[in-house]
Amino acid sequence: MPKEEKKQTASAQSAPMETVKRTTIADVYQAAKQLEGVARHTELIHSDYFSEISRNDVYLKPENLQHTGAFKLRGAYNKISQLTEAEKQRGVITASAGNHAQGVAYAAQKLGVKAVICMPATTPILKVEGTKALGAEVVLHGDGFDDAYAHSLELQKEHGYVYVHPFNDLQVLLGQGTTALEIVQDMKDVDAILVPIGGGGFASGVALATKLAAPQVKVYGVEPANAACMKEALKAKQIVTLDSADTVADGCAVKTAGDLTYAFCQNYLDGIITVSEMEIMGALLSLIEKHKLIAEGAGVLSLAALSKLPFKGKKVAAIVSGGNIDISTISALIDKALIARGRVFAFSVQLPDKPGQLLKVAQLLTDENANVIKLDHDQAMVTDSFKKVQLTVTCETHNEEHIRRIVRALEKNGFEINRVY
Amino acid sequence: MPKEEKKQTASAQSAPMETVKRTTIADVYQAAKQLEGVARHTELIHSDYFSEISRNDVYLKPENLQHTGAFKLRGAYNKISQLTEAEKQRGVITASAGNHAQGVAYAAQKLGVKAVICMPATTPILKVEGTKALGAEVVLHGDGFDDAYAHSLELQKEHGYVYVHPFNDLQVLLGQGTTALEIVQDMKDVDAILVPIGGGGFASGVALATKLAAPQVKVYGVEPANAACMKEALKAKQIVTLDSADTVADGCAVKTAGDLTYAFCQNYLDGIITVSEMEIMGALLSLIEKHKLIAEGAGVLSLAALSKLPFKGKKVAAIVSGGNIDISTISALIDKALIARGRVFAFSVQLPDKPGQLLKVAQLLTDENANVIKLDHDQAMVTDSFKKVQLTVTCETHNEEHIRRIVRALEKNGFEINRVY
Repeated sequence: MPKEEKKQTASAQSAPMETVKRTTIADVYQAAKQLEGVARHTELIHSDYFSEISRNDVYLKPENLQHTGAFKLRGAYNKISQLTEAEKQRGVITASAGNHAQGVAYAAQKLGVKAVICMPATTPILKVEGTKALGAEVVLHGDGFDDAYAHSLELQKEHGYVYVHPFNDLQVLLGQGTTALEIVQDMKDVDAILVPIGGGGFASGVALATKLAAPQVKVYGVEPANAACMKEALKAKQIVTLDSADTVADGCAVKTAGDLTYAFCQNYLDGIITVSEMEIMGALLSLIEKHKLIAEGAGVLSLAALSKLPFKGKKVAAIVSGGNIDISTISALIDKALIARGRVFAFSVQLPDKPGQLLKVAQLLTDENANVIKLDHDQAMVTDSFKKVQLTVTCETHNEEHIRRIVRALEKNGFEINRVY
Repeated sequence: MPKEEKKQTASAQSAPMETVKRTTIADVYQAAKQLEGVARHTELIHSDYFSEISRNDVYLKPENLQHTGAFKLRGAYNKISQLTEAEKQRGVITASAGNHAQGVAYAAQKLGVKAVICMPATTPILKVEGTKALGAEVVLHGDGFDDAYAHSLELQKEHGYVYVHPFNDLQVLLGQGTTALEIVQDMKDVDAILVPIGGGGFASGVALATKLAAPQVKVYGVEPANAACMKEALKAKQIVTLDSADTVADGCAVKTAGDLTYAFCQNYLDGIITVSEMEIMGALLSLIEKHKLIAEGAGVLSLAALSKLPFKGKKVAAIVSGGNIDISTISALIDKALIARGRVFAFSVQLPDKPGQLLKVAQLLTDENANVIKLDHDQAMVTDSFKKVQLTVTCETHNEEHIRRIVRALEKNGFEINRVY
C-alpha cells in the first residue's frame, strides 16, 4: 500500500511555527465558507456500544459518509478554491492512490480545474477508474508510491501545475479542520475529540479549529502503534523518520510527519494515543456489527482508542475518517477481526486412535456451547505415532473468556491441545 | 434461515377488509406519537450512484441505521405500548430469530414489559445473546422456525402472554408505517416510495400511511422473485402458499402473506416489482461500495428494483429496511456479489504442454487490463491427454462487457476456454 509520508513540497512553510502563530480561527471559518454546499455536514451518531466500551458518552462523526468516502475533499477543495485564476488555469497535481486522490479529483471537477493524479502502475484498476470517473487525468508510473511521487514532482515542474500535498499544506489542513467546527457546533457540551493521525494534516486542522473555537475541549490524536510518526516526533522534539510503517490502517502508514503538521500538533494537540493492529481490526468489526457502517482501517483509529482514554464519564466525539476499503479485502479483514475478538477459535488435538474419542470432544464442545464450523480429522498428519489421529477443530466462540473455558474443559478431560488461532 | 410466514395469530382480524376500511391516517399519527423519542427519525441520504442506475432522483431511507438495525421496533413498540395495563402485566411472546426478535425485545425492555422470544435451538449463539442482552427471555425449541412458532403458541396459551405477530397485526403495521410519514415529511416532492415485502406488514403500513397522507405518491412493493407470495396472492386474488421461499433476502423468505396484510396491499399498493438473487447481491455490494452502509439481503430489495422502475425522472425514496446480517456471512455474500457484477471472472483453459503458452495467456490478460488474483496450473487435471496442462485463472474485471472482451481476445488467439464463474 502506498504511503503518503514525504519530503516537503513547495507549499510547505519555511518557518512552520510562524505559520502556526499567525493562523487564526478566521482562517478556519473562511475554509468553512468555501466548503458550504460542497462538503456534507455529516450528522453525529450516538453509540451505545462504544459508550459502554469507553465508559464515556460517545458520538461518531462519520466522515466515511462524506462525499468520496472520506474527509479528504474538505482539504483539497479548500486548497484549490483559494488558488488564483492563473493558478487554476494551470491545473493541480498530486500523487496518491488513496482518499486524497479522489478528494482532489472531486474538488477539481467541482471547480472546473484540471487535475493530474500520479499513481503507482500497480494501483488496482478500480481505484484508477474511480479517480478517472471524477474527471481527473491519471498518470500511472513506477512500482510504488515513491516513484509516483517523484514523477508528480517532475510533471509539476514541467507543466507548472500547483501541487496539492495530502497533509503538509496550510489550506489543506484548514479545510480538514472544518470537521471540528461541525462537531463543536452540533455538540455544544463535547469534552474531547479523537482524530486519526497519518501525516498529521487532519489532526492539525481539527486541533487548531477546536482550540480556537472551543478551548476547553481536549483533542487527542490516534496513531497505529506500528506507524506512530507524530508521537515519536513529539517525544524527540523534532521530526523523525520511522524505519517502517506497516499497518492495516494503510491510510495512516506514514513514516515521516510534515514539518507544518508537526508544528500544529506540537502546539495544539493534548496528547497521542497509539493502538494495536488487533485493536484496529476489532474496532472495524464493531462498527460493522453495531452501526452497519463500513470504514477503512485508518478510519477507525479513533474507535480503537476508546477503551484506553485517560478519562471516564465525558462526552467524546470520535471521528471516523474514511470508508474507502477495497471490497475484496473486507472479507479478509472480517476474518482477522473475528479471530482478534475471540469470536473464532481453532485448535488441534491428537486423539488416541480408538472409538469414541471424537464423540467425547464433540460432547465437550457442545457442553461449552461452542459451535463447530470446520473439522479436519487426519491420520496422516501425526508423525510421531501410528496410534494417534490429529483432529483440527474451528469453532465460533463468544470471546477469549469463552475460549479459556473450552480449553480448560478439554484439558480437564485429558486432551492436550494446540491453539492454531 | 427461519421463515416468518405463518398461520394467523389471535390478533389477526376475521374481516380484514373491514379493518382496512376503518383504519385512518389518525391511527398512523397515533403510532407516530407513541414512537416519539423511541424510534430514530432516520435521515434521508441522496444517492448519485443509484440515481444514475435508476435514471430517477433517488434517496435512501436507511432503516438499517434504526435502533436494533431494522424498522421492526417501530411495529413492536407501537403494539406493546398500546396494550392495556393488564396485558402488559402478562407480558408478550413471539417466535423469531431475526429482526423481529430484537425489535420486540427492545420495545418490551423500554416499556418494562416481560418478553419471551422462541427461537429454533439451531439459532446462532450471537443472535441468542443479542436478544438476551435486550432483556428478553429466550426459549430455544426445535430444529426450525415452525417448531419454535408452534412452541410459542403453546407458551402463549399456557401463560396468557400477548402475541406480537411479525406482520399480520394492525398495530404492528401501523407502527411500521410511520417510516412513510417521515419520508413524506422530509421530502415533500417525493413521487414514489419503494418498500420490501416479506409477509407484507411493512408494505401495508407504508402504503396506508403514504396514500392517506400524500395520495399522489406511488408506493411499490419489492419481493424476491424466489419468494413473491404477495405478488402471487394479488394475481390469484386470494392468499396463496408458495412451494418454496429460498432467497438470500432471508428476512423476506415468506411463503404465505397475512390475510390482513394482503387486504392492505390489495387496497393501497400501486404495484409489485420482483428482483432476482443476482440483483439483490449486486445491490448489497453497491450499497457497501458507494455508501459505506451494511444491509442484509432483505434490506436492499428496494435498491435492487431501482433499475427496473416503470418510470424515469421522478423523485424516489428507496427504503433500506435492515442491516442485521451475520458478519461471518458478509464475506461470502461479497464474493458472490462480485461474481454477480462481473467483477471476478474465473475460467479454465487447456494449454498444449509446450513452452510459452502460459506467457501468451498472461500477455493477453495484461493487454486486456485483467488483474490475475489466482492461478492454478495443473498437469494432473486433464484426463483426455498427456500433452496438455489445465490452467485455471481467476481475475478481477470491471464488468460483463470487460469479461466478453477478454474471452474474445483469448478465443481469437486459439485458446478454448471454459468459464468457471
